[in-house]
Amino acid sequence: MALSLKNLGLYTDYYELVMAQGYFAWGKQDEKTVFDYFFRTNPYQGGFTVFAGLGDFLEMLGDFRFSDDDLSYLNNAGFKVDFIDYLKEFCFKGTIFSVKEGEIVFPGEPLMRIEANLAEAQLIESLLLNILNYESLIATKACRVKLATGKKVFADFGLRRAPGLGAIQASRASYIGGASSTSNVFAAKLYGIPASGTQAHAWIQSFANEIEAFRSFLDANPQHAVLLVDTYDTLRSGVPNAITAAKEFEKKGGRLYGIRLDSGDMAFLSKQSRKMLDDAGLGYVKILASNQLNENMVYKLLHEDNAPIDAFGIGTELVTGKPDAALDGVYKLAEIGGKNTMKFSDNIEKETLPGRKQLIRFCNPDGSFLCDGIFMETESIRSSDFMYNQFNQDIKTDFQSLAHENLLHLVFENGIIVPPIPDVMAAKKYQEERITLLPEAFKKLTGVPKYTVGISNELHKLRSELTKNNKNNFNDKLL
Amino acid sequence: MALSLKNLGLYTDYYELVMAQGYFAWGKQDEKTVFDYFFRTNPYQGGFTVFAGLGDFLEMLGDFRFSDDDLSYLNNAGFKVDFIDYLKEFCFKGTIFSVKEGEIVFPGEPLMRIEANLAEAQLIESLLLNILNYESLIATKACRVKLATGKKVFADFGLRRAPGLGAIQASRASYIGGASSTSNVFAAKLYGIPASGTQAHAWIQSFANEIEAFRSFLDANPQHAVLLVDTYDTLRSGVPNAITAAKEFEKKGGRLYGIRLDSGDMAFLSKQSRKMLDDAGLGYVKILASNQLNENMVYKLLHEDNAPIDAFGIGTELVTGKPDAALDGVYKLAEIGGKNTMKFSDNIEKETLPGRKQLIRFCNPDGSFLCDGIFMETESIRSSDFMYNQFNQDIKTDFQSLAHENLLHLVFENGIIVPPIPDVMAAKKYQEERITLLPEAFKKLTGVPKYTVGISNELHKLRSELTKNNKNNFNDKLL
Repeated sequence: MALSLKNLGLYTDYYELVMAQGYFAWGKQDEKTVFDYFFRTNPYQGGFTVFAGLGDFLEMLGDFRFSDDDLSYLNNAGFKVDFIDYLKEFCFKGTIFSVKEGEIVFPGEPLMRIEANLAEAQLIESLLLNILNYESLIATKACRVKLATGKKVFADFGLRRAPGLGAIQASRASYIGGASSTSNVFAAKLYGIPASGTQAHAWIQSFANEIEAFRSFLDANPQHAVLLVDTYDTLRSGVPNAITAAKEFEKKGGRLYGIRLDSGDMAFLSKQSRKMLDDAGLGYVKILASNQLNENMVYKLLHEDNAPIDAFGIGTELVTGKPDAALDGVYKLAEIGGKNTMKFSDNIEKETLPGRKQLIRFCNPDGSFLCDGIFMETESIRSSDFMYNQFNQDIKTDFQSLAHENLLHLVFENGIIVPPIPDVMAAKKYQEERITLLPEAFKKLTGVPKYTVGISNELHKLRSELTKNNKNNFNDKLL
Repeated sequence: MALSLKNLGLYTDYYELVMAQGYFAWGKQDEKTVFDYFFRTNPYQGGFTVFAGLGDFLEMLGDFRFSDDDLSYLNNAGFKVDFIDYLKEFCFKGTIFSVKEGEIVFPGEPLMRIEANLAEAQLIESLLLNILNYESLIATKACRVKLATGKKVFADFGLRRAPGLGAIQASRASYIGGASSTSNVFAAKLYGIPASGTQAHAWIQSFANEIEAFRSFLDANPQHAVLLVDTYDTLRSGVPNAITAAKEFEKKGGRLYGIRLDSGDMAFLSKQSRKMLDDAGLGYVKILASNQLNENMVYKLLHEDNAPIDAFGIGTELVTGKPDAALDGVYKLAEIGGKNTMKFSDNIEKETLPGRKQLIRFCNPDGSFLCDGIFMETESIRSSDFMYNQFNQDIKTDFQSLAHENLLHLVFENGIIVPPIPDVMAAKKYQEERITLLPEAFKKLTGVPKYTVGISNELHKLRSELTKNNKNNFNDKLL
């Protein structure tokens, strides 16, 4: 299943419509263009980014149309009748190449290449950025949490702190990036993600006392009950009552699945609880932890404190991408009317790369990722003897004879989605495969090196020419 | 207009359904309960919070039902047939008291009181928290930006960096909190918010050169054109070309509305641009600024650098609530089956307030806010001689004879929304009125004092009794 919303044409920035109308007025709406989607910085000061959101984006692109009501709205807003007539029949008819959903990607790389008419390429920009920026941010966070948990698992518990309806994308991206399940039932059903959850303080408070609340919960949920033990006092009340309830439940042939710690010092409480459970012969009862956790806290608990925690619930920081809040992905024009173009800047890191490009990954003999290269689409790798570091033209990387693969694949052709339709399960699986191929150094939570992304001979030459022409233009003017 | 989504019953955390089924199994689903919504910390280390999201929440509450498809999903997930039958007819039939949308509120205050049957009160928790936490976070950010801009205006430009579909709530909340318009056309139409926008680098690049791009844009948008001047070089190319185009446009009887600065040193560039425009007799052309701005940067530009900027576009930090990312709002049980209840903790700040409460604001003679008090619903103010500081029982505040008003109002009664239906325009207007009544000290962007929120005699007495009983329970156990 997938997210489907009817008539998303207005899910765009106002200036896209203003520009589209302008292009239409100048008869430029059908000029052929190529746009690139890329971001400039890995979130969380990390060493990589997990690309996500492709499935949602392509589905929503299919719904990118204007209802009669939308058109009246635009008419009232002052848009012209002939432009509104054009929008009446509007649907995206372009072609898109994209890296696979779940791919491990890096700053500056063209992750998506949109080949479309000028007006349609502009109208879909906001939707594309909105979905890909957010889902990639969250999938990357989830992947970092998973790197911290190692073989332990974690669930997305973020719905209540997620950004409104963005919770739907948050749960999808969390699962692709590394969560085992989600508490968000809407997203679970929509995308086929496993749903999970335990119990709240209100359950405990709704019974006369804690032990009765635990007994009742076990009775109602014999298969997979997790008891929340911090309503009154974790070690003096919660855990002893959970043990009593679990032992009674054993006599009926049942097994308590776990307890959940939700406040206090998780390292101390988990060790004490583990000992109390083990002493009672309840070695099988799992310990879950939640309470404003993030990847760094999880890492410390498991790898420094040796906390005997079996699973985590991660909420706020997962679904908000804290502390980054947004991936800085942008959508830039690379070709128009058959001519290469780029945005210039005094700061080379703010410049864009011109032309129709392919992203190529080079691998070590063991299959692990060595470096990536940005090539012209039609350029043969053999024609390049070396790559230039994207921002520092003095560094060259030899890459001949290395195993390599193209990362940009056709996903949308002349307005039609190209099977297979990106699927959440496939994206998660792909992410899991790919992250194992990323060398360990880039997977550290802090203090990561920079993964090499180079540009090819031809791309380097093209950018230099365009830059030189631009400088000459200014010199002419200054004369 | 308002956001309407059909069948939002699954927009809940999995454990709410598990607990609801458990309550149903124990015949407790119809027990009368009272829940409070409150948060513990003002975002952004600020002195206040703008309450927002009420309109969306109440609309979505009306859509909180389960489709046949949802019920099959739950059936496949292992929920029991009699519980699923119960959900078939489910709709929220409770009563809600809430502070008005746009109200200025503070930590620890009950902002919403939900009186409902146990099962329904639990099922709607996640939706309530999801919407209110996020919209209040963003409305508060917008209000801070507006405090920084003073009489200048700003637009929400956040769609492309907003968290997926949360962009819809982000634009709504931004407008309530202080934005003058939004770039998000979907939200603009849905809620009746003014839409605005300028032009992108792609427009400039799609023409042979910058001056032609400017001329063409003015021709297509004579009324309200804003020219983006940093595609090639702001001061050497963009502003001179904008001046040329504006002077030509003057000859045709038109007026260029403004230019937009989108990179570089905004203070320097705005001063240089202003001078160049003024020297050309274009004193009427406005200067807009955008580029990763937040309230602190806007404040510095206008109040320290004296930058001649007339309007701002605020994107990423506005719609993500950076650096906070989430309001820590929670939903806690205060009464069940006619009995007061609370959550205990060794940390008094983590304890909750029992019972059915009213929030009362006390004002200075000039109408400005002095302090707030949390009272029992049926308690007469006269019966209290003083209030207790919520977390420090030694501090007392005298409040007799002060002007005051109840802040909790009936908004939903026995499952039916109580008119007037909260409206975005009304909420914005109310926020604008109320923020003027908040003393200046609390409106500073940093280094704010703590606004006094007290609890009444009766509430203090009730909490003390319940706490004492809880301690006695433990002492009994330890014997």
